[in-house]
Amino acid sequence: MSPTEARARFRDGLSVPTSGWSAGWTQANLIAVPREQAYDVLLFAQRNPKPCPVLDVTEPGEVACEIFDGDLRTDLPGYRVYEHGELVDEVTDVRDLWRPDLVAFLIGCSFTFEAALLEAGAPVRHIETGSNVPMYRTNRPCRAAGSIGGPLVVSMRPMPAEQVATAVRVTSRYPAVHGAPVHIGDPAALGIRDLAAPDFGDPVHVRDGEVPVFWACGVTPQAAIMQSRPPFAIGHAPGMMAVTDARDSDYLVP
Amino acid sequence: MSPTEARARFRDGLSVPTSGWSAGWTQANLIAVPREQAYDVLLFAQRNPKPCPVLDVTEPGEVACEIFDGDLRTDLPGYRVYEHGELVDEVTDVRDLWRPDLVAFLIGCSFTFEAALLEAGAPVRHIETGSNVPMYRTNRPCRAAGSIGGPLVVSMRPMPAEQVATAVRVTSRYPAVHGAPVHIGDPAALGIRDLAAPDFGDPVHVRDGEVPVFWACGVTPQAAIMQSRPPFAIGHAPGMMAVTDARDSDYLVP
Repeated sequence: MSPTEARARFRDGLSVPTSGWSAGWTQANLIAVPREQAYDVLLFAQRNPKPCPVLDVTEPGEVACEIFDGDLRTDLPGYRVYEHGELVDEVTDVRDLWRPDLVAFLIGCSFTFEAALLEAGAPVRHIETGSNVPMYRTNRPCRAAGSIGGPLVVSMRPMPAEQVATAVRVTSRYPAVHGAPVHIGDPAALGIRDLAAPDFGDPVHVRDGEVPVFWACGVTPQAAIMQSRPPFAIGHAPGMMAVTDARDSDYLVP
Repeated sequence: MSPTEARARFRDGLSVPTSGWSAGWTQANLIAVPREQAYDVLLFAQRNPKPCPVLDVTEPGEVACEIFDGDLRTDLPGYRVYEHGELVDEVTDVRDLWRPDLVAFLIGCSFTFEAALLEAGAPVRHIETGSNVPMYRTNRPCRAAGSIGGPLVVSMRPMPAEQVATAVRVTSRYPAVHGAPVHIGDPAALGIRDLAAPDFGDPVHVRDGEVPVFWACGVTPQAAIMQSRPPFAIGHAPGMMAVTDARDSDYLVP
């Protein structure tokens, strides 16, 4: 299904996770903040490119951009609305809430490199189990930017020991969508006490002979928004991403 | 000579081009603007990463940052001061001009990949001749960002036809400092009428059997500043870059 067709379904009210939709087309995290906070968010992303790879930014008040030829207020399957860092609503249409000073950031998502992992024969456990990827707040602070700061959030995929190098090699080729792992093995070193209790998403089983591999995660900017409490923000609902008109191959380096 | 030592010489008043100084350490373009314009400059850079690869950004009023452990007001060999887009002064110390709301951007410079070209046996003509690299305004507009827009500026290095592929391969490995060429051959297609009359820097000779190879150039943001006329800006003087504490190898991808 083309991105245009997928977005039309979501605009018509379908509210489901976008994993597996429009294969080959890039999906993105959404975070929209008032222009007043936009510099801090953009600088936060610039200073933390692994968790926050910016794919595109709208002009204030605009609802489309170069890689998203749709309507950002309606064309995602679900949205989360934050006031002063608190989640105040979860809706499927934010036309009533979109302010003329809002700036939307589209941030790269690991769905892009998961397709490449599968093609290379590396397992992606949460796809096998049909659940959401497990995500964890770490004890590593991101570099702050003005009013915006927070911890690095990572996603975890268990890899058989003999496929860890493959996973590094494959994901390294997508630096614009989180790139290589930030950490391999030893959750405690990241301040993660219990892999079975992720902060976001669902737990997955790490089998004997497997190593937990951690990638910087696009939830990091939403976690920073929650911690930094700007007056207003809109993000995508977990797993319900923006399906863009960019191709995964656009972000592949040689 | 270490970056600290080089910066001390420049701080003491030495005003010379930095080409060849502190080999292996990354040099950077400087552009500083008031906080009011900083979002537009940062977004311009984000939208035009090939000419404007941001290496670091200071907090407002600060004169150092993670990759530059010195004083940005004194430690470059020369500065250019702009008011409303007009060059109003060229000085070696901007302590009197540095405002508490200034934000400084350090932007990647092709010196980084020129060392790699030489190591790979590809010629760098302007280094052979001891002149400045020739730079040209093109007919390709950058993607604008709010108040900031302008043409893509390119640098040109002639390559023997059999070494063009080497030049592409080597510079592709430095995506954070302009990366692969944006154009190979045919200056007219970029709107360049006369290679012998560059808009910045010095002309170099393209020999028989050589092809002009064009890279996105870090002068692009200064050209955009001149065209977009923000009230105030400070840049480095041509060829007199910020010698940073980052290593060229930090920007090399596998």
